[in-house]
This record gives sequence, structure tokens and C-alpha cells, in this order.
Amino acid sequence: MTLYLNLAELLGERIEQGLYRPGDRLPSVRALSVEHGVSLSTVQQAYRHLEDQGLAIPRPKSGYFVPAGREAPALPMVSRMAQRPVEVSQWDQVLELISLPPSRAGVIQLGRGRPDIDSPTLKPLLRSLSRLSRKQDLESLTYGCIHGDQGLREQISRLMLDSGCQIPYQDIVVTTGCHEALSVAIRAICQPGDIVAVDSPSFHGVMQALKGYGMKALELPTDPLTGISLEALELALEQWPIKAIQLTPTCNNPLGYIMPDANKRALLALAQRYDVAIIEDDVYGDLAYSYPRPRTIKSYDDDGRVLLCSSFSKTLAPGLRIGWIVPGRYLQRVLHMKYMGTGTTAQLPQLALAEYIEAGHYEPHLRRMRGQYLRGRDVMIDWVSRYFPAGTRVSRPQGSFMLWVELEAGFDSQRLNRELQPQKIQIAPGSIFSAAGKYRNCLRMNYANKSSCVEQAVKIVGETVKTMLEER
Amino acid sequence: MTLYLNLAELLGERIEQGLYRPGDRLPSVRALSVEHGVSLSTVQQAYRHLEDQGLAIPRPKSGYFVPAGREAPALPMVSRMAQRPVEVSQWDQVLELISLPPSRAGVIQLGRGRPDIDSPTLKPLLRSLSRLSRKQDLESLTYGCIHGDQGLREQISRLMLDSGCQIPYQDIVVTTGCHEALSVAIRAICQPGDIVAVDSPSFHGVMQALKGYGMKALELPTDPLTGISLEALELALEQWPIKAIQLTPTCNNPLGYIMPDANKRALLALAQRYDVAIIEDDVYGDLAYSYPRPRTIKSYDDDGRVLLCSSFSKTLAPGLRIGWIVPGRYLQRVLHMKYMGTGTTAQLPQLALAEYIEAGHYEPHLRRMRGQYLRGRDVMIDWVSRYFPAGTRVSRPQGSFMLWVELEAGFDSQRLNRELQPQKIQIAPGSIFSAAGKYRNCLRMNYANKSSCVEQAVKIVGETVKTMLEER
Repeated sequence: MTLYLNLAELLGERIEQGLYRPGDRLPSVRALSVEHGVSLSTVQQAYRHLEDQGLAIPRPKSGYFVPAGREAPALPMVSRMAQRPVEVSQWDQVLELISLPPSRAGVIQLGRGRPDIDSPTLKPLLRSLSRLSRKQDLESLTYGCIHGDQGLREQISRLMLDSGCQIPYQDIVVTTGCHEALSVAIRAICQPGDIVAVDSPSFHGVMQALKGYGMKALELPTDPLTGISLEALELALEQWPIKAIQLTPTCNNPLGYIMPDANKRALLALAQRYDVAIIEDDVYGDLAYSYPRPRTIKSYDDDGRVLLCSSFSKTLAPGLRIGWIVPGRYLQRVLHMKYMGTGTTAQLPQLALAEYIEAGHYEPHLRRMRGQYLRGRDVMIDWVSRYFPAGTRVSRPQGSFMLWVELEAGFDSQRLNRELQPQKIQIAPGSIFSAAGKYRNCLRMNYANKSSCVEQAVKIVGETVKTMLEER
Repeated sequence: MTLYLNLAELLGERIEQGLYRPGDRLPSVRALSVEHGVSLSTVQQAYRHLEDQGLAIPRPKSGYFVPAGREAPALPMVSRMAQRPVEVSQWDQVLELISLPPSRAGVIQLGRGRPDIDSPTLKPLLRSLSRLSRKQDLESLTYGCIHGDQGLREQISRLMLDSGCQIPYQDIVVTTGCHEALSVAIRAICQPGDIVAVDSPSFHGVMQALKGYGMKALELPTDPLTGISLEALELALEQWPIKAIQLTPTCNNPLGYIMPDANKRALLALAQRYDVAIIEDDVYGDLAYSYPRPRTIKSYDDDGRVLLCSSFSKTLAPGLRIGWIVPGRYLQRVLHMKYMGTGTTAQLPQLALAEYIEAGHYEPHLRRMRGQYLRGRDVMIDWVSRYFPAGTRVSRPQGSFMLWVELEAGFDSQRLNRELQPQKIQIAPGSIFSAAGKYRNCLRMNYANKSSCVEQAVKIVGETVKTMLEER
């Protein structure tokens, strides 16, 4: 672990142990630099990290303070080890979530994984799309190459340097969103009946793909700050004929953690030892609040066993349906699976994205969204501690725009969703993030939406939760 | 069979038997009306049908004539019954076809199934796309509803009336091209190891999907004018545990025939008797040269066993990647398979298409393309009879824009493609249209492209074929 992370962890422990109380001033940068024998910039990095975690607040010219007022809600509990691989359920709940049209009058969709699409930094992309749409030529209107547009692949190759990956464009395949990338990856590696180890809670799209292809999911205990338990993974690899590990290690959906680099390397080493593939979902990776963005597991991959899946759906706009996969040694099978699923990918959005990134619009947009989502996280956590019952546990996302909320055991978030229907509010029930339908006492809420009615919606959710708990 | 088809068949036989010679004037409409006791308009319909088949040519104020000059080349032979269901091969050949970028400098891609995208009747669609692209709203930029945009589904529902189908929009699911519709249909019905009966030759996309999902294809003998042999199908249904019948009965790819209505009904009856599903690919149906367009098998479906798959890729522009499926009783499974493959479908092209169709631009565009492709067919057949070796057999497409060319047994069209590489010409080798790699002596060429260099390309293909045959 790097110096600043060591220091941040130490300070974080002290804050959480109550050594510093809410509202207290934290030691000065200079004092800590002397105390720990590290540079001033290392201390500053450590404080920024604590800030990202919501454990320290900077005040101009006064230094860092422990957040005042309410104490931060407790973290969600570490999920328990699954007894065995299971077939995936929960399709009905997922279908309900994805059946609503985008702007069905008045429904506040807190449950869906939508980014904010109002930023002015998206305008150059829309201008490119609009201009290219008027062109009536082969490039934009006919079948592309099965690998995707070369110009866009070159830009993706360049962007991936930020996550420590040196990938030539020839090794990148453009897909219809990250959804297709994940689906293709699963089919490239697994046969029906095969077992896939997954983080838990885990993205429902992957769960449902496993269900549809007849594979089984083995849910691994997952820490809300550091991710999948490596000990549990090793035990599972010994015990079961696991074909692949599927996880979202960076800005996890739904928990928001970033798996430490050391754990990423250790996970890769385990995969190598047991010779299994890793399907790495990095769709939120560019939205990590810390800069430079974290490395991917793929960046350590030296024998091509990691299939990295990503898209522009969370960073730019989901409606474009443009993602990509870096399939390593599985390129040939991935091309086949991609072809049989959808053929070639739509041309226009690829051309527009290539233009947008090449012109340098992507990085400033990311910077803006990172800042906005970080503020959105703190505000949403504040609302939950204000409007939800005492004892509600809440994740500390280190990126993306989704909050995981854990209520007391036995709470039913599927019923909560039904109760919220007349109020035109939708949340994502926790059960869809588990193959076995666990986490029914949890829910996921989106904090990308800046609309002023969101606070009122969160308040109504909190009050409905309270009413439901009182009735028990 | 209707009166005009009876008459057309009778006249067609006389022409093919040589009763009327090339250049001869055919009997007048009045004379035939008296001779056969049918109305003038029935005779006119019969002549238009013969015209579509390339057997009669109208000359203003002079009547109808047998096409002069060269005699029409013979039709391809009826394919033979497969001995048993087989696993699909030929992926490498398909990959070669789909790996070329859309406008790789100078390569004339006669092999791909691209429509002409130069027509001015596409302009309103591009304008809609361009205008909608500038909008920065939820409708265009975020995840849609899993079923697809309601406005577009309503328009598709209306268009389907032309093929005899009354389908409420709620029963239509928008997909990422017809490719995804077919892929989803296959997965909704079949498990790995299952047998699917297919027309032969057959669309390579479906073949490769069967391969990828581990299903087996049973290739049925297919007549180049009337399609799949019902006798062979019935035998196969008795002999094998067939799960589904997959075919393109209207403007078949690659043969271009339209299965007669009576055969469509008989095929449905067989499917009902043996309780199997029908996956009907109608992607070229709106491009039938005759008007009104032929009915679909789906239009006779009274127990929801037909999954109709189609798209705007052949009628408008493939780059949009917008298709649809009407899954009948399999709606729930189809939604699941659609979700796990790509999630929701891109919003922008759906919104633009809905606008374009609602404003009445689709029908005039179709009329124009039908006429253009019909002329293209006659020109391409003429080129083949001029530039290919004597004895070359050629299909008589009744719609779409693809010609099937059959050379003498033992000819190798995969090698032909390699020989054509230095000349920058690409054809589709016949073997990719067969699960077992049959039809290596055949090839498919596209006549949608109006560019002046196409004749020269066809000439080079013909001469290369001649050289290869002489070397044998």
C-alpha cells in the first residue's frame, strides 16, 4: 500500500474509533508530516482520500475537520458466503425496473443506473452526432466492421492508458453497451451449467445473463470498502470447478468501493493459480472520485485472461449504447459471440464519440461529473441520515453515482417499491443484486439526478420505510 | 392459387418451353382475356408478375415481349436433403466477410447485404436524426424501456398491416437490428443440443448463432422459386425432435424467392401438428417487387407460435441497428433474452424512425427502392449471362437486392474470393450459407450498388471464374 493510503487508513481508524469527534479539527498537515516522517504532499493526499470517504472536511485556511452534526451512518455489513452456486432468480423484479419509459410523466426513477445527461460538457458530442447524422455516406449508414470503428478504438486505446493499460486498438472490440460486452464475455468463457464466482451484491444485468445462459452464480462475501474477500475466493476456487470470476472492482455497482491495488493483484494471482478467467466490469472506473483514476485488474494481466468490459453509458450517455470489450486471449471467441448476438455495432454514435474524444472533450467532462457526483454522494448520505430511521446503514461510494442503503433484517424493499408507486417514486430493490434474492432489506438509489424534487423523493422513501417498520 | 398467378404460370411455362422465342411478341391482353375467360386486369396482373420474374418485357403501346438477346440463364438447382442435423461450420469465412470497414478504400464489396443508402427519400430520416441529436433530454440520451420506444412500436404495428398482420404495439419488442431479433428468438426457443430445421441455402447470421449456442441445423431442400420443400419438412419432423423451423420465406436470402401463400399456410399447419415454433425472418419482405407486399406466415398464426423478426436494415439503413421481433406466446422469454444480450435499445434512431414513418416517408421510399432493385436485378442477371461462363445458373429474386449464382460442381468460391483480393473485389462465398459448408460452387452478389464500377467488377469476377475453370 502506498504511504498516503497507510496514513489515511490510520487517521480514518482514529476518527471512526471516536478519537476525534464530529466537528473536531484534525491535526495540521505540517504536524502529521513531522509525526509520520512523510512529505507534506503525502499528508495532503491522505486528507483528500479521507475527504473522498466523507471522513474529513476541508475548511479554507483552517485545515481539516471531522464532519459535524450527525455522525456518518454505519457501513453496510459484509455479505455472507453463499453455501453453494445457485441458479439466478429475480427476473420479475428486474423487468419491473427496466419497463418504465425514460421520462414517464412524473415518476422519479431513483432505481435506475442513469448518469446526469444535462451537463453542458456533453454539447460537443451532440453537435458531432447531429452533424454526422446529416451525412449520407457508407461510413455512417451501413454495416461497419465487426470489430467496430477503427477511429473510436484508437481513442479508447488512448483513454485506457489512464487505467494503466497499454492495449493496441486491434485488441478492442466495440459493443452495444457494456451490457453486450459482459454478455459476450460470459458466453465466450462459459457453457450452460458452469459456475461463475461473483461479487455480492452484484450488477443485475450480469446476474440475469447468467440465468439466461443457464450458468450458476457463486456469491462471494464482499466488504463494502475493499470488495470481494480473497480468502473466500480462494476457498471457493478449491472447492468448486469455477470457470470465471465476474466482478466490478472499481467503483463497484451497487456498493461503490474501489478494491485496493494489492487486492486486485492478489485476485489476478489466484485466477492464474487456478487457471480461471476474470470478467472485469469497469463501466464506472472513469468516475472514481480520486485522480488519477484507479488501475484495472486488466492493467496487471500478463497472460490475457482478463476480459475487460466497459462503455460510455455511465460517463456520457446510456442511450448511445456504445461499449467495448478487451478480450485478451479470447478475442476470436468474443468476435463470434458478438456477431451472433447483434452483428456489427451502430456506426453513427461510434463516429461521434471518436470525434468528441479526439477533440479533447472527454477529460473535462469527466472532471466535472466526478466533482458533481462526489457532492451528490455527500448530500444523499446526509438526506438518508436525516430522513431514514436511525440505524440505517449506508455505503461510501468512491466513485459513480449510486448509494446502497441497508435497513434492518427482515425489511422488504420489494414491498417498499409497491408502497411508493402511488407517490410515483421508484427505487431498486436490493434483491435484484443477488442471484439468490438476498438483500431484500437493502435498496439502491441514484444521486446523479440534480433535480430539486429528489430530496423530497428521498424524504418520502425514508418516511415510507419508517411507517413500514412501525407496522411490523 | 389466384387467377392471375395461374395464368402467369401457364404463360411462363410456354415461354420457358420455347413456344415463344426471345424477342417474340406475346399475346395481347385482350386476346388472353377472351381465351381464358378472365378480366383484362387479371391478364395485366399476370403480365406484371411475369415482368417481375424477368420473363416478359413491356414496350409502350406495343404490348409484352419475351426478353430479347441471350436466353435467361437456368435457375439454380434444388438443394438436396441433409442426411442429419449438423453443427455449423464456416465461421472463418463469415469473419472475413464482416471484417472489412464500410468504405475501405476501393474495395467493391459485392458480398455484403447492404442496401443502397444514396436515395434522396432517406433525407427526411437523416434530418430527423440530426434534429433529435441536438436535443439533450432523457428520451434520447438515457436507457429506454426494455420493449422499445412506444411511438416506434405503434408505427411498426401500422406497417405490419400491409403483410396481413394485426399486431398491437404491446406485442412488439424493438431490437438491435434483425440480427438480435433472430438471436433472441433462437435462445427463447432452443437449448444447446436442440435441432433447428432451416431453409438451405440460409442466412449466415442465423447459422452462426446456432453454432454459437450449440444447436444443430437440419438443412431442408429448398426450391429456388417456391422455397422450402414441405414434403421434406414433414419427413424431417417425423424423424427428428425438431424444436423450431427457421426460414426467410419472403424475398429469401440468398435465393430471392417468395414462398407461395398456400405453402406458407401449409408450413404453419405442419408446425402446429408437430408443435414446433417458427422463426420467420421477414427482413426483406417490404422489398418484394410485387405490390401489395406478400403476406407473412405470422399473418396466419392463430396460436402465437411464429416469432416474426425484421428490421429497417435492408429497407432503410443497416447502420441504425434497429429491428424488431413479434414473439407471440414467447414474449416473456424474449424480453429476458433481449435484456441479457444488450439491455435496452438505442433511443435516438428509434425516435427518428418513428418520426420518419409517421410523416409518411417510408412508403414512397419503399416504392422507389423496389423499382430500383428490380431494374438492378435484370441488369445484374444480364451481366452474369454476358461475363460468366455458359451454363452458369442464376436465381430470379422476387424482391431484395441479392443474386445467387451457381457454377459447375467442384468450383471453389472461397478460392475465387482469394483470387479477387488483388483486384479489390469481394463476393460472398456460397459455403457460408450452409451449416455444413455446402454451396462452395455458388456465390452471392449484391445489386443494390448503383456505382458505375460495379459492371466492371462483375466482369472481373466472371473472367476470374472462367480462368479458374479453364485451369482445372
